Amino acid sequence: MKALVYHGPGEKSLDERPIPELTAPTDAIVKVARTTICGTDLHILKGDVPTCEPGRILGHEGVGVVHQVGEAVSGLAAGDHVLISCITSCGRCDYCRRGMYSHCTTGGWILGNRIDGTQAEYVRIPHAQSSLYRIPAGLDEEALVMLSDILPTGFECGVLNGKVQPGCTVAIVGAGPIGLAALLTAQFYSPAQIIMIDPDANRLEVAHRFGATACIDNARADAVAQVLKLTESVGADCVIEAVGIAPTFELCQQLVAPGGTIANIGVHGVKCDLHLEKLWDRNIAITTRLVDTVSTPMLMKTVKAGRIDPTRLITHRFRLDDILSAYETFSRASSTRALKVLIEAS
Amino acid sequence: MKALVYHGPGEKSLDERPIPELTAPTDAIVKVARTTICGTDLHILKGDVPTCEPGRILGHEGVGVVHQVGEAVSGLAAGDHVLISCITSCGRCDYCRRGMYSHCTTGGWILGNRIDGTQAEYVRIPHAQSSLYRIPAGLDEEALVMLSDILPTGFECGVLNGKVQPGCTVAIVGAGPIGLAALLTAQFYSPAQIIMIDPDANRLEVAHRFGATACIDNARADAVAQVLKLTESVGADCVIEAVGIAPTFELCQQLVAPGGTIANIGVHGVKCDLHLEKLWDRNIAITTRLVDTVSTPMLMKTVKAGRIDPTRLITHRFRLDDILSAYETFSRASSTRALKVLIEAS
Repeated sequence: MKALVYHGPGEKSLDERPIPELTAPTDAIVKVARTTICGTDLHILKGDVPTCEPGRILGHEGVGVVHQVGEAVSGLAAGDHVLISCITSCGRCDYCRRGMYSHCTTGGWILGNRIDGTQAEYVRIPHAQSSLYRIPAGLDEEALVMLSDILPTGFECGVLNGKVQPGCTVAIVGAGPIGLAALLTAQFYSPAQIIMIDPDANRLEVAHRFGATACIDNARADAVAQVLKLTESVGADCVIEAVGIAPTFELCQQLVAPGGTIANIGVHGVKCDLHLEKLWDRNIAITTRLVDTVSTPMLMKTVKAGRIDPTRLITHRFRLDDILSAYETFSRASSTRALKVLIEAS
Repeated sequence: MKALVYHGPGEKSLDERPIPELTAPTDAIVKVARTTICGTDLHILKGDVPTCEPGRILGHEGVGVVHQVGEAVSGLAAGDHVLISCITSCGRCDYCRRGMYSHCTTGGWILGNRIDGTQAEYVRIPHAQSSLYRIPAGLDEEALVMLSDILPTGFECGVLNGKVQPGCTVAIVGAGPIGLAALLTAQFYSPAQIIMIDPDANRLEVAHRFGATACIDNARADAVAQVLKLTESVGADCVIEAVGIAPTFELCQQLVAPGGTIANIGVHGVKCDLHLEKLWDRNIAITTRLVDTVSTPMLMKTVKAGRIDPTRLITHRFRLDDILSAYETFSRASSTRALKVLIEAS
């Protein structure tokens, strides 16, 4: 089969690899129909993710058809259409029992990281029963590719952790795919304002179409002054960090209202300053989270009911044969205006 | 009347001052019976609190007897025994309606800071109806002095924000009066372990008597290694920062378990490092809070029911005439072994 293989920092190629086989009775083999590329894949290619070793097939998102199941797997059979979660979970360990699937002691984020991933014609999914979701008939499978990672991430790490509530003010720092996923799902809770902050005018234009009530270009304007102006000088109740660098986390600390929350989604490579000398008495919370994908079934229902349309995030389409072009397009997003690139694997 | 007056950094004296008068119909004048000294008073004396100007009477804790009430005050009358909350609240502004009394737009922590405080024979209390609590007959008034600030602070900022639950593991960094108040009130929720960390052997001995299940002297032992040993290598679910300096906040980040909370109580004067490069995927929360004193009535019930005995925190007693000695004793706590010093004002 064809597979996109990581060969160490800066190195990748579309290789011929054997179709994976069941290695445990709880495994399933899935024939991948559609996959995509995540910002995290670019981090791996920069060499930022030491757990991902050369020789690894990348990708942790996708939908497909069950090809084969291990003998311990029930409720799934060959031919079933499934959504692949970016998080593998046994469903039995202490963390899984608390709903913290991201920290499953034999799972978590392993796909396209510690084990081979979805940017291939076939993929082996461990703990298949609790890591795959059967797709009900009639659901748009392109939309569901966005539910492997990006939508639950924006929703759980941003909207749920940020405690978005009716009438509150939300500020989202970063209008990339993750920030936009937070923007789409924040609207479930009817906040009074959703202020989007990014230095890319194209992304802000997308954010405006996606429902942002205000867009601030922080390459040109003072985001703090603008947010204070929009919030009667108190700041935002819920500030979502969707970039993952020290200056944006610093900005979040300046934007948060007393009693508010900074919900960090960004993947950070270095430490940040925390201004406790200003924040110790502000009654705020700062949260971090690797997505647990506890919300995947709920998000499927919102897609089915037409409450959100995740296909709006898809800007480009490629065949698996042409995945190197897809990487090129996705990694040069500021010029290509790429958000999510859809890759058809079969 | 006699009053302890702040005269600028490093300067204080016991002065003769006029008895305060009502300045608004919502005020009350309280004859102070007992007060105490807070670590925050020492911060003021170092010049760390710019809102507190020279000439200010210090103190934000105490119990007393209502001397006079303004015409808009109902439910309180001269002769009533009252607990003075460190937080003044109007009960009507947006923050008060959310229970965030600490951020009341015309109150908050103003006593002994922006207005004259309780280390005097009499004190004026604005918004008296919502800032004073009538003391039911039969309650030990010495115990209640600890409910003006220190117990609700340890409880709300540490135990409630830290989400202490039955069976969880709590680590408290700092065994001073605030850390000990968190230790006492954490036990309401039956955690499996309460690990106390401090470099002062005397304070750890007190913590042991107060119910700590383990005490770590971090002047002599590696607190991180010890906590990991006590928690099956995962860390503590709830880490309470009760010191307020960068190294202790750094330690908290090393102690917190995936899915856990760092509840900051400490008053910080400088920024800290936040290791988001390690914490971004650990599903943790960090909280800050200036005490709201929403729990004061509840804490009074626990004292009345004998569930906690806050008088255990009182190590020394002085008369108001001798308050300079009380400051001396409290500020040299490592040699005097002082926790809370009780001052009898009348």
